[in-house]
Amino acid sequence: MKAQNEQYLERTQKSFDRQAMMKTLGAELSVLAPGKVEIRFPYNPKFTQQNDYLHAGIVTTIMDSACGYAAFTLMPPDADVLTVEFKVNLLRPAKGEVFTSSAVVLKPGKTISVVEALLYSPEYGEQGDKPVASMTATIMTMI
Amino acid sequence: MKAQNEQYLERTQKSFDRQAMMKTLGAELSVLAPGKVEIRFPYNPKFTQQNDYLHAGIVTTIMDSACGYAAFTLMPPDADVLTVEFKVNLLRPAKGEVFTSSAVVLKPGKTISVVEALLYSPEYGEQGDKPVASMTATIMTMI
Amino acid sequence: MKAQNEQYLERTQKSFDRQAMMKTLGAELSVLAPGKVEIRFPYNPKFTQQNDYLHAGIVTTIMDSACGYAAFTLMPPDADVLTVEFKVNLLRPAKGEVFTSSAVVLKPGKTISVVEALLYSPEYGEQGDKPVASMTATIMTMI
Amino acid sequence: MKAQNEQYLERTQKSFDRQAMMKTLGAELSVLAPGKVEIRFPYNPKFTQQNDYLHAGIVTTIMDSACGYAAFTLMPPDADVLTVEFKVNLLRPAKGEVFTSSAVVLKPGKTISVVEALLYSPEYGEQGDKPVASMTATIMTMI
Repeated sequence: MKAQNEQYLERTQKSFDRQAMMKTLGAELSVLAPGKVEIRFPYNPKFTQQNDYLHAGIVTTIMDSACGYAAFTLMPPDADVLTVEFKVNLLRPAKGEVFTSSAVVLKPGKTISVVEALLYSPEYGEQGDKPVASMTATIMTMI
Repeated sequence: MKAQNEQYLERTQKSFDRQAMMKTLGAELSVLAPGKVEIRFPYNPKFTQQNDYLHAGIVTTIMDSACGYAAFTLMPPDADVLTVEFKVNLLRPAKGEVFTSSAVVLKPGKTISVVEALLYSPEYGEQGDKPVASMTATIMTMI
Repeated sequence: MKAQNEQYLERTQKSFDRQAMMKTLGAELSVLAPGKVEIRFPYNPKFTQQNDYLHAGIVTTIMDSACGYAAFTLMPPDADVLTVEFKVNLLRPAKGEVFTSSAVVLKPGKTISVVEALLYSPEYGEQGDKPVASMTATIMTMI
Repeated sequence: MKAQNEQYLERTQKSFDRQAMMKTLGAELSVLAPGKVEIRFPYNPKFTQQNDYLHAGIVTTIMDSACGYAAFTLMPPDADVLTVEFKVNLLRPAKGEVFTSSAVVLKPGKTISVVEALLYSPEYGEQGDKPVASMTATIMTMI
């Protein structure tokens, strides 16, 4: 996939930095390539469910930002990014000290892009075949 | 729908109170009937995305807890609740001062229940035909 | 909801009639109001899964057409309709002699509409609280 | 992934052969490995939407059977397979002469398995980075 925007790295980081939620979670973005990003963030007991695992909504928060910014890297310079919808499967308890979500654009599009993300915990291996959760998201380019 | 568990009100509230995430968001639960709950929580600038609306993941957090606890009210006394998966549509920008999510069980089941939730903001009318977001969730009874 | 297109009834019926799949299933459309349609079709042993119930894909076929045409009734005269994505929950075995899917637009939009459908069988009551399946679909207006 | 059932090949083929829908579509199953199956089927003008592409419901039919049987290969000998829910993204028009869906189990489970499928057309390359559609399905083991 090819970026349409030479400043895609700076623009993606800048939009990410405007998400107060990412700061609240202590999350950090890495743009790996056009159409591919990774976000890491630490476990925090303030964001847990009744069994002290991360709440599914926090798992979703990170995968949603990962999907949105993966699509955003491919958008034209004046675009904003909007999540239309997503579907999440929760595969394993979200335990561990640091989580990483990687998102890859499955289908880039002028208006609609489809992006897939996984979330990993070192508890089950940092990459590979035991993700904590998966997302498929439909992302819109807003001009 | 009928509760199998006379203490369903207390048990649901107690599990909700163990979700640190709900405290962090300042969220409050109302069990309206067996199979039907509502959660309210205030806007908080710490949980926003790049345009100062609530992050889609926070919208999801509340709808997921609402769906889970709606199903939980119908579960037997010794059960725990687990979200298998959900799908969220983001219908309008999540702006406003207080948000309410109402969740209703569409299909109760011994192992699998399907629950639907909407999220409202007074910005668009507290109930009615202009929800901020919708969720369909698949919830599992863990025994 | 209000139709933007005076000929919405004729246009919706005409597009439906071009779907060979609807003919193959013996399906019939009723446009109930702008944003609301119903499709009925009979059980057919050619379209079943391993236990002689209708295949989930056929249940989906009808709900997808219902969602698409519910959105289509609200589109401008020169538009075509495209399904971006959907999510289906299979709630009860698809048995019975005639099935009805009713679809209602949850959020109309210039580009993106969100539509919800249920599928009923007289086996469980033709309307009401025991649907066979549910769908949430994201539908796009193509101009 | 490892089959729990020595006869998994025969059992999967036998259940597939009981799906009248697969015969109606002229579909053929290949079990590639435990947790991995492929289904091929030809274009048929009887199963099309208003623009003569395959109906999204038919695309779904094949991906649903692929997901179900991918999970089924890993189930114990006396189990039956049930689709709980799925989500489909329609990425490109379903045109072409022969379609192939490949499904791989993402998370096997005693009760619940999560499976992903893609559908390919030679129109866009038989494998690779241009699928026609994607599915994530939640599949249940029924004992």
